[in-house]
Amino acid sequence: MASEVRQKATLAQTAATIMNKMTTGQKNNALSAMADALIKDQASIIEANALDLERGRENGTSPSLLDRLALNEDRVAGIAEGLRQVVDLPDPVGELIEQFDRPNGLRVEKTRVPLGVIGMIYEARPNVTVDAVGLCLKTGNCVVLRGGSAALESNRKIVEVLRNALATTDLPEDAIQLIEDSDRASVNEMLKLNGLLDVVIPRGGAALIRNVVENATVPVIETGAGICHTYVDESADYDMAEQIAFNAKVQRPSVCNSMETLVLHEAFAERHLQQIADRFVSANVELRGDKRTSERLSQIKLATEQDFATEYNDYVLNIRIVANLDEALDHIRKFSTKHSECIVTENAEHAERFLNEVDAAAVYHNASTRFTDGFEFGFGAEIGISTQKLHARGPMGLPALTSTKYRVYGNGQIRG
Amino acid sequence: MASEVRQKATLAQTAATIMNKMTTGQKNNALSAMADALIKDQASIIEANALDLERGRENGTSPSLLDRLALNEDRVAGIAEGLRQVVDLPDPVGELIEQFDRPNGLRVEKTRVPLGVIGMIYEARPNVTVDAVGLCLKTGNCVVLRGGSAALESNRKIVEVLRNALATTDLPEDAIQLIEDSDRASVNEMLKLNGLLDVVIPRGGAALIRNVVENATVPVIETGAGICHTYVDESADYDMAEQIAFNAKVQRPSVCNSMETLVLHEAFAERHLQQIADRFVSANVELRGDKRTSERLSQIKLATEQDFATEYNDYVLNIRIVANLDEALDHIRKFSTKHSECIVTENAEHAERFLNEVDAAAVYHNASTRFTDGFEFGFGAEIGISTQKLHARGPMGLPALTSTKYRVYGNGQIRG
Repeated sequence: MASEVRQKATLAQTAATIMNKMTTGQKNNALSAMADALIKDQASIIEANALDLERGRENGTSPSLLDRLALNEDRVAGIAEGLRQVVDLPDPVGELIEQFDRPNGLRVEKTRVPLGVIGMIYEARPNVTVDAVGLCLKTGNCVVLRGGSAALESNRKIVEVLRNALATTDLPEDAIQLIEDSDRASVNEMLKLNGLLDVVIPRGGAALIRNVVENATVPVIETGAGICHTYVDESADYDMAEQIAFNAKVQRPSVCNSMETLVLHEAFAERHLQQIADRFVSANVELRGDKRTSERLSQIKLATEQDFATEYNDYVLNIRIVANLDEALDHIRKFSTKHSECIVTENAEHAERFLNEVDAAAVYHNASTRFTDGFEFGFGAEIGISTQKLHARGPMGLPALTSTKYRVYGNGQIRG
Repeated sequence: MASEVRQKATLAQTAATIMNKMTTGQKNNALSAMADALIKDQASIIEANALDLERGRENGTSPSLLDRLALNEDRVAGIAEGLRQVVDLPDPVGELIEQFDRPNGLRVEKTRVPLGVIGMIYEARPNVTVDAVGLCLKTGNCVVLRGGSAALESNRKIVEVLRNALATTDLPEDAIQLIEDSDRASVNEMLKLNGLLDVVIPRGGAALIRNVVENATVPVIETGAGICHTYVDESADYDMAEQIAFNAKVQRPSVCNSMETLVLHEAFAERHLQQIADRFVSANVELRGDKRTSERLSQIKLATEQDFATEYNDYVLNIRIVANLDEALDHIRKFSTKHSECIVTENAEHAERFLNEVDAAAVYHNASTRFTDGFEFGFGAEIGISTQKLHARGPMGLPALTSTKYRVYGNGQIRG
């Protein structure tokens, strides 16, 4: 007998044929029906969530993780509202991307089509379950969800509610599949389902993403890891530099587009190191400095190579002092995860060099790296932030969940 | 000490920083210099190739493989001419794809950038070496080549000539790397070089591609496998159907866009099966039919499930008879590799259903599947035909060898 994973992926693959035919109107109706159902059935969802929370507390889960896991009426309302926002986004499917006629009379059209079946592998936050369903269904895809075991009861109830809602619409219930097997083997089985899954998208911590990248034979869209730098050039305006750096580190340290290392031109450091360090220390940021920094700042820990290669996602910041832009570029080239990188400078030539030469999904001149985000970019939704170079790079909106198809119209053409 | 693969990929990664800055003019000059050098040094290339051919003959290599491997003055001239054609193609790098201003004053530009370092894994044809170098360098990428061991002497000399030519230009010699280690382990090492290779592109037979897809942790662009169908509908014009099907099978059976299975509506088969079968038999095509076909045609082999799932790349054709369009769509869904699929029909509604519902890189109405090709589509070059849904699908021109980067211009914006 086929495993749960294979069975459910096969059901999704079959449903993909129906999803492929759904109009924008039919898909939007389904999204609205799902949003209504979440509100109507919120009591049972919150009840199921309570079981997850109870088990989490028994297992000694940290308060911050429990908070991410927890659902209440406000949060369910927010999740439902997220679905309604997706209704309002333009549907990329069917878009005519290119059209050309060949000398032999063939007409070629390149149009946007759904990817097919998307595998989502993620951790404990049950809102991701609904977000993923909304974005995948809006783009005509089916989705196979494999959330963290800590949220299993919540996810099971949410998916039941969503599938029941679909049953009242034209969309096939089987477009949504939840893998309930919480053994890690079920993840690894998903990663090898070529022919049933068209893509796998991991969302979560570094270990989860590494496991997916290392073991998947299905194409992957890699998301997440961010060792982001802010380089403050000699000519930078002090107030602007401090504000941008502080925002990049402190406004929300736990996310991928926050800063891990502040790179300072030595002339800037000569004038302002103590002042900018004090600002971070006052916000309880632990500082670690390279040798030049530690010679200038008393009581700073020495940063190791490993520190410069670490995504802290926390109130910890490395400081590196460089002699010039080239040295800054070298440091970034060595340690960047190619997510988001910033230069603060009043020197236009240096800005252009930085933006051209730094290899990253998003490069900033005089703005915080925290803006690398689908909503901040105005996409109205975000599946994740791609840190790979194929298919999609940076914040991914709905078009990242589509592929293309060439339609060729002839009247008997053959190749000579 | 690092292995040959790691050493050379590291050199390429370093050269990528320089390649990233090269202008279209600098890149075109280098392509022209390489074309000139191939002509100037053709004697030494043909000499090196003779060593490969001699070794091939000693090892009992088939005449057709020896023919693919062989170089002579005409072929070297053709290869050099291919480089010159790439000079004439527009450079996709630097293209401004999107540009928008955010309410907070941020200006966001999405531009096309090189991928970085491309790993090419391919088989015995030495022309692929030069093609790959031309396309990768034109798009600002570095390339790590791992050709088949049967062509090692030819590739070594060709790469020496190309690198020497680069030394006379602004481009770094290290943009071209050849892995000479002919052990298969060197391929598998390339497949795991995340951080040094940005993408791996396999070109070759099914076994080579399967090995790459199954073992790569580096992102892959899958190319090649084609089990293509031609469905002849009830209303099809006989002459058009015969010409299209015959062209799809016989014009060049060895390539991925040729037809493997002819699917016939039973009403069409009732009238024309014998006639169309005779046409194929007269061209020495071996026919294998499903049960309905074998009941109508004497002396036809029965096609097995395995036959319908085989890419023959040869003078062999399966015939399947179906009751209606739905049955044809089911058959194609089951056996298609999602490369190229064709319907021959005079029924516009059936044509639209087929083009919409068949999930393939290219879908045809009344034209041969043999047109799925970068040159036939007018791209002026072809890196391969992608059979995956991510990044690029169908014939890949130069833009498939690029990624994108968001440049964000601010004046002190921070996130609230």
